[in-house]
Amino acid sequence: MKIDYKKVVGEILASRKEQGGIDKIYFAACGGSKAGLTPADFFISCESKKLHSWVYTAKEFVLCTPKALDENSVVVTLSFSGSTPEAVEAAALAQKAGAVSVTLTGKEDSPLGACGDYVFYYGDEPKYQYSTGSMAIALRFAIELVHQIEGYDHYDQIQNGFDILDDVIRKARDYAVPGALAFAQAHKNEPVIHVMASGANYNVAYTTTTCILMECQWIHSNPIHCGEFFHGPFEVVDKEVPFLVLVGTGRERAMDERAVAFLNKYGKKVTVLDAKEFGIDILGDGVCEYLSPLVFTGVLSIYSHKLADARCHSVDVRRYMWHVAY
Amino acid sequence: MKIDYKKVVGEILASRKEQGGIDKIYFAACGGSKAGLTPADFFISCESKKLHSWVYTAKEFVLCTPKALDENSVVVTLSFSGSTPEAVEAAALAQKAGAVSVTLTGKEDSPLGACGDYVFYYGDEPKYQYSTGSMAIALRFAIELVHQIEGYDHYDQIQNGFDILDDVIRKARDYAVPGALAFAQAHKNEPVIHVMASGANYNVAYTTTTCILMECQWIHSNPIHCGEFFHGPFEVVDKEVPFLVLVGTGRERAMDERAVAFLNKYGKKVTVLDAKEFGIDILGDGVCEYLSPLVFTGVLSIYSHKLADARCHSVDVRRYMWHVAY
Repeated sequence: MKIDYKKVVGEILASRKEQGGIDKIYFAACGGSKAGLTPADFFISCESKKLHSWVYTAKEFVLCTPKALDENSVVVTLSFSGSTPEAVEAAALAQKAGAVSVTLTGKEDSPLGACGDYVFYYGDEPKYQYSTGSMAIALRFAIELVHQIEGYDHYDQIQNGFDILDDVIRKARDYAVPGALAFAQAHKNEPVIHVMASGANYNVAYTTTTCILMECQWIHSNPIHCGEFFHGPFEVVDKEVPFLVLVGTGRERAMDERAVAFLNKYGKKVTVLDAKEFGIDILGDGVCEYLSPLVFTGVLSIYSHKLADARCHSVDVRRYMWHVAY
Repeated sequence: MKIDYKKVVGEILASRKEQGGIDKIYFAACGGSKAGLTPADFFISCESKKLHSWVYTAKEFVLCTPKALDENSVVVTLSFSGSTPEAVEAAALAQKAGAVSVTLTGKEDSPLGACGDYVFYYGDEPKYQYSTGSMAIALRFAIELVHQIEGYDHYDQIQNGFDILDDVIRKARDYAVPGALAFAQAHKNEPVIHVMASGANYNVAYTTTTCILMECQWIHSNPIHCGEFFHGPFEVVDKEVPFLVLVGTGRERAMDERAVAFLNKYGKKVTVLDAKEFGIDILGDGVCEYLSPLVFTGVLSIYSHKLADARCHSVDVRRYMWHVAY
């Protein structure tokens, strides 16, 4: 589906002109889908003076609804299947509150699709074409929203970044293979692997922990924010505990590098994925920071599959999900 | 220090009257201190239409500063020592941006104290008097701010809750001892213990993971949000993996109970701390939800010490913190 972000955002803003415009956006989803929305939230927090943004796990949004949710709000929900009950409830709540409901789904004819004032459908997009996947859609929508509300200085530059994104990610994924194979061999018997990142990339650490390690491999993990590392978690560091660290290329880099320096000194099983090595800088000064979670997501998918192979534990095996009622 | 919240908030609002008032509040701190500020953020998100609130780990606030930070903002920072560099930087940044800097510290004559337009000092408060500790100060300040900006319907009720809070917590801590002893014996050799909660209590799960388990006991842990549990993390559940679940008494309770039901069915090492059992309901309908993190914090401190005793691993032992440069 070719999405005309300019037109959709123009319509949304026009629809709220008399009510004073759009000044709040809530992202509500679950697990990896929630994490997939956070690069959009991070972008808005960094780049907007007028639009305020939050991310919720969808059920908390429904049960502990923010009082500020109103007709000046946009609520963005995401579920590939389109039938995650919490996401559907969140989108229905948005509509009931008079907010604009934007739903992202892989299945257009779905309960979530039915609760969207605007439905962004990505079910037919090629699997590894990240520029048209759900994370990119949410981010592009956020960029367009900020740009039309107050102007975004690097608007053209980030569009150029999206144009070459799939090429950069394809190369990054190829480059990642040897490292992923080595990581998989070295970690195939580890019961615990912690994952670290910060800034826009923190969500990728969250997804790596939550979906790749805990959900698919039943390996324990904590997604540790590099800025939090020295305030507790670093006490578990020793030569036996594995850490996987995503090092960003933006303003957060100093935070990530400080954590890596400590890990290299006191740890041993330390794997560093450096955004610079993966060519993220090509995406453009001042904007590559916002696109880097997409590149890391592509790279981590290689790590996920190589780890699954080394462990003979397919990424498709679940013991509860899809099998039992809960 | 007896804090006159009414007066401080009145002064802050008066100081920004010509600029259009206060409409944003940022909480910025690290680790357990950051978690200690989140009940205030949660309260504002639930109860305010006009005041928008966010929590940052302090270094990210400094490096990836939200563009919306301005003279209509309050920035609340917290550090017991008053010298956590990231918190001091965040407070200094707040002042530079023209925001109101409110600092909470246990040491009045400290770098953080020097960066506060208003300094809330709690260094002389009795250790287990939670009603005057840092978490309560941030929450009371938030309540007063919302009340003076737009009115809070349960204002008197929550003040009554604070009046009896220490009594409720003292009883809850006494009640917790047998359970904490049993938990400590059962878990003293566990390498991994996951902690779960949601809503206002999620921050207590975060602190339990980050400070009690990882920092003090070098035990691996992930603070899993009950709303996220079924979207990945629950795949690690089996009869061998320990989970400690905080069950709230507010709107989030349904989310927590769903997780507990699953754990009781498929897990075995499941410990449930139910807010209702600890007498949190006494604090008042509609407000006890906001006070429950204070009660849980008091209860978890018992669990922390009993676990340390059973493991012969003092809560004061660190291998890196206070010992090496980083």
